[in-house]
Amino acid sequence: MNQKLQTRNWKQKLHEVIYEADTPMGRIFDVVLLILILLSIIFVMMESVKGLSEKTYDFLYYSEWIITIFFTFEYIARIISIKKPAKYIFSFYGIIDFLSTIPLYLSFFFIGSSALLTVRALRLLRIFRILKISRYIGESNKLAKAIKDSRAKILVFLFAVVVVCIITGTLMYIIEGEESGFKSIPISVYWCIVTLTTVGYGDIAPVTPVGQLLAALIMIMGYGIIAVPTGIVSAEYSASQKAAIVNINSQSCSNCNASKHQDGAKFCHNCGHTLFND
Amino acid sequence: MNQKLQTRNWKQKLHEVIYEADTPMGRIFDVVLLILILLSIIFVMMESVKGLSEKTYDFLYYSEWIITIFFTFEYIARIISIKKPAKYIFSFYGIIDFLSTIPLYLSFFFIGSSALLTVRALRLLRIFRILKISRYIGESNKLAKAIKDSRAKILVFLFAVVVVCIITGTLMYIIEGEESGFKSIPISVYWCIVTLTTVGYGDIAPVTPVGQLLAALIMIMGYGIIAVPTGIVSAEYSASQKAAIVNINSQSCSNCNASKHQDGAKFCHNCGHTLFND
Amino acid sequence: MNQKLQTRNWKQKLHEVIYEADTPMGRIFDVVLLILILLSIIFVMMESVKGLSEKTYDFLYYSEWIITIFFTFEYIARIISIKKPAKYIFSFYGIIDFLSTIPLYLSFFFIGSSALLTVRALRLLRIFRILKISRYIGESNKLAKAIKDSRAKILVFLFAVVVVCIITGTLMYIIEGEESGFKSIPISVYWCIVTLTTVGYGDIAPVTPVGQLLAALIMIMGYGIIAVPTGIVSAEYSASQKAAIVNINSQSCSNCNASKHQDGAKFCHNCGHTLFND
Amino acid sequence: MNQKLQTRNWKQKLHEVIYEADTPMGRIFDVVLLILILLSIIFVMMESVKGLSEKTYDFLYYSEWIITIFFTFEYIARIISIKKPAKYIFSFYGIIDFLSTIPLYLSFFFIGSSALLTVRALRLLRIFRILKISRYIGESNKLAKAIKDSRAKILVFLFAVVVVCIITGTLMYIIEGEESGFKSIPISVYWCIVTLTTVGYGDIAPVTPVGQLLAALIMIMGYGIIAVPTGIVSAEYSASQKAAIVNINSQSCSNCNASKHQDGAKFCHNCGHTLFND
Repeated sequence: MNQKLQTRNWKQKLHEVIYEADTPMGRIFDVVLLILILLSIIFVMMESVKGLSEKTYDFLYYSEWIITIFFTFEYIARIISIKKPAKYIFSFYGIIDFLSTIPLYLSFFFIGSSALLTVRALRLLRIFRILKISRYIGESNKLAKAIKDSRAKILVFLFAVVVVCIITGTLMYIIEGEESGFKSIPISVYWCIVTLTTVGYGDIAPVTPVGQLLAALIMIMGYGIIAVPTGIVSAEYSASQKAAIVNINSQSCSNCNASKHQDGAKFCHNCGHTLFND
Repeated sequence: MNQKLQTRNWKQKLHEVIYEADTPMGRIFDVVLLILILLSIIFVMMESVKGLSEKTYDFLYYSEWIITIFFTFEYIARIISIKKPAKYIFSFYGIIDFLSTIPLYLSFFFIGSSALLTVRALRLLRIFRILKISRYIGESNKLAKAIKDSRAKILVFLFAVVVVCIITGTLMYIIEGEESGFKSIPISVYWCIVTLTTVGYGDIAPVTPVGQLLAALIMIMGYGIIAVPTGIVSAEYSASQKAAIVNINSQSCSNCNASKHQDGAKFCHNCGHTLFND
Repeated sequence: MNQKLQTRNWKQKLHEVIYEADTPMGRIFDVVLLILILLSIIFVMMESVKGLSEKTYDFLYYSEWIITIFFTFEYIARIISIKKPAKYIFSFYGIIDFLSTIPLYLSFFFIGSSALLTVRALRLLRIFRILKISRYIGESNKLAKAIKDSRAKILVFLFAVVVVCIITGTLMYIIEGEESGFKSIPISVYWCIVTLTTVGYGDIAPVTPVGQLLAALIMIMGYGIIAVPTGIVSAEYSASQKAAIVNINSQSCSNCNASKHQDGAKFCHNCGHTLFND
Repeated sequence: MNQKLQTRNWKQKLHEVIYEADTPMGRIFDVVLLILILLSIIFVMMESVKGLSEKTYDFLYYSEWIITIFFTFEYIARIISIKKPAKYIFSFYGIIDFLSTIPLYLSFFFIGSSALLTVRALRLLRIFRILKISRYIGESNKLAKAIKDSRAKILVFLFAVVVVCIITGTLMYIIEGEESGFKSIPISVYWCIVTLTTVGYGDIAPVTPVGQLLAALIMIMGYGIIAVPTGIVSAEYSASQKAAIVNINSQSCSNCNASKHQDGAKFCHNCGHTLFND
């Protein structure tokens, strides 16, 4: 039993180091992890730069293995130290942590196989490690809430944008034809999205007067409707902020049980009975 | 009369299947229709891709006929099952449904005629079928209301943008001249719209110092005035949302006849008389 | 004296036709003017299109003269029919009306002179006639007010943008050098404005890694600070709209002389004395 | 002691001229300084324009020395006339003033040395003098406050944008490959930032269908999420403005010590006791 207690104690300490940033050890662990994540991202990027990756091949190779081994230990430690490992493993961060560790091992097993290119692509997916960083970003609850609240509306809006792009893209395909670079409807729709979102690469551009007129209409439309998602988020965020300012609390009247009292209210807004603040 | 009742019964059932999504049959009908619309859009797009359309010619040809026949039955069924067919036929969806069905028949009748290109363009208009989908998008009333409320102001604003583009376009034509690609005033105005809306293709770009200065002014102006439509929609949407939050009801006081009472108010805000809620 | 009265009467009628849109004659006058303005704009544009202007030279020449003569009569009539001609002549519309009429006469007098190009440019300034149209656009007072109220702040903001562009433009000139198209600081500043305002022509683009990094920073900055003017207009417009909703009136208390009473308020918010509404 | 008083007097006068814009001398000083700053910026720009700088070499050389000497005197005068020179020297404007003066001297000392290019770059840093101008821009406190309040949130947002760009950039590198211009992950991330911020140079553009599809998704995402920073600033600014309208003051009731009284309130909103305004 003493043995068992010690195990629990040891697990609890590990839990403290990994999951709590308040203890000195926990803080050191967090800083080391943060640095390793950033280093790892930089290494993945360096690997893709031709001249650079050849010069620093050995360095990148060994660094990557060191980082991967550390991430492996981190992943195992997280599973051991938590009470319900399944909950962690299938959580967002659990999956990210798994994907951060596995690519190198996979590339190790598949080496020599013909699917070299696929393996290389797989290795590059280590870039998703950057999502591990989101653990360290403040929650910024209000912002997230505003986006969440307006997500449905923004999706409807973006869907409407896609519908508009499909229709105008087809019209442009009919008007401009294949000589101007509008080779097919999908390409025309792609061009239309490029234009409506005001990106405007210029790799494809209308050359006929009618095409340019329609393009101008699409642009002005894009310029006008960009206001819609902005207005939505703006209003939602403003509303969520106002709710926070007025500070409606969860108190309820002892007399009539009415709720939604303003912070600092002394009398029930419903029956006039005195409210007792904590 | 029994016959008549049966007919009505049969029509009513059709009406339920087509117009109501709550019954099991209605739900199946909706899903089948949705899939056919999306397939149809994909087929139109595939048809325009060179290599693809040649390989899959037969498949596309027969699929298109099947979809069109289904849409024909749907159109006829909608007309039969409704009490006032004229109202449906000339409604937005009635016209869309008609245009979704007719192109293939037309191309069939005109085949062999010299106006082959026009017929092909006609067939492509099947893309408008995507608008049939809007039946399935939630109303999102508040958003639609905010856009509707600010439509007039946004149109005035966009008209002002066009006026600015015509004037600055003419100035650019005078400054840059035809060597820089500003071949005529319409082209210059087109360039000006491309610039002001921050699309910026780069197919035409000023090369003289004075032209670049004016272009920079137009861009900064465009960057500044994009705020205007956004501000309008944002404020309108915010207002329409606030009205929904405060929930001013149409109740009026039985004592002093004052109106605009907040939802849930128990006493008149004007004379203090008790309000009777429904 | 009878003569004088008749003159006044005649002038008054002219005033009615020109300045008032409520009378039948006034409405006809407005419609004719509107059509002539739009035609004139179209003619100026046609003149600049190479192939088109040669084919329709005679038509454009005579049409222009007819329109100009009409505008001349309009200008003279406006001066005659108003009580204080000076006030009209030096008003915004007075200047626009003058500039709408004079270019053709000037080109007539200067014809044959060597300054042909300048004269042609002068003729093109007829495009400013489009501003005559603004007489017919509804005032949209609230919108104009919101822009007016936020003008100072937006100008300060845009000035800050220019300062940022001058500094980053110089840095890009140092980093990228003249080989990448950043030929001089003014060009670099121009590029920087193109990038920050998210126009992005692509005629000049950074090629060195450091330059691309700085460019990425400028873009993200531009993406972030576009929020500022939008936020300003949005808030100002929202405020001007709210003021309209709350309806603070100009009434003042008969007892304590306090003002800014809400519409419909029955008692002074300052001393509690009864307020007498009109 | 008389001597000492005179010195103080002389210093005080200098302080008035330099730091106060209300006295006639102070106003003249400000105007001269403003003109010199703007001239200096124009000269730096002219220096970089090839043809221009050769023609006007002598003029630019002597002008620059005159301006630099004036700025030197200004810098020394600012140090002398203030009570705590250290506070000025290490303030934002102190550093800017120092950097505005030093480049020419440095270039003088290093002349003939091999590091010619670096020295030239150093001289161009005179462009930072433009920041001296910010002394003359009105504070526009509310705007600055709104940006300050939303800075943290905008930074989190922009960081999220960078994370998205790194991930999608890597995906594009895998999809498009090096033939399409996506030569390495950093280049792909750069392209992704160019696209997401709707700049869209077009120097790199996807050519494969899958790449164009992903690009379209990034664009639509960029179009949708531009709403986020705008919404934040808009709401913050609106809130800061509302606070300014209601004018909640820091007064507290002498009876119950409740605070957050509205400006001009005469009675405590909590206990009804009379409030004594200053």
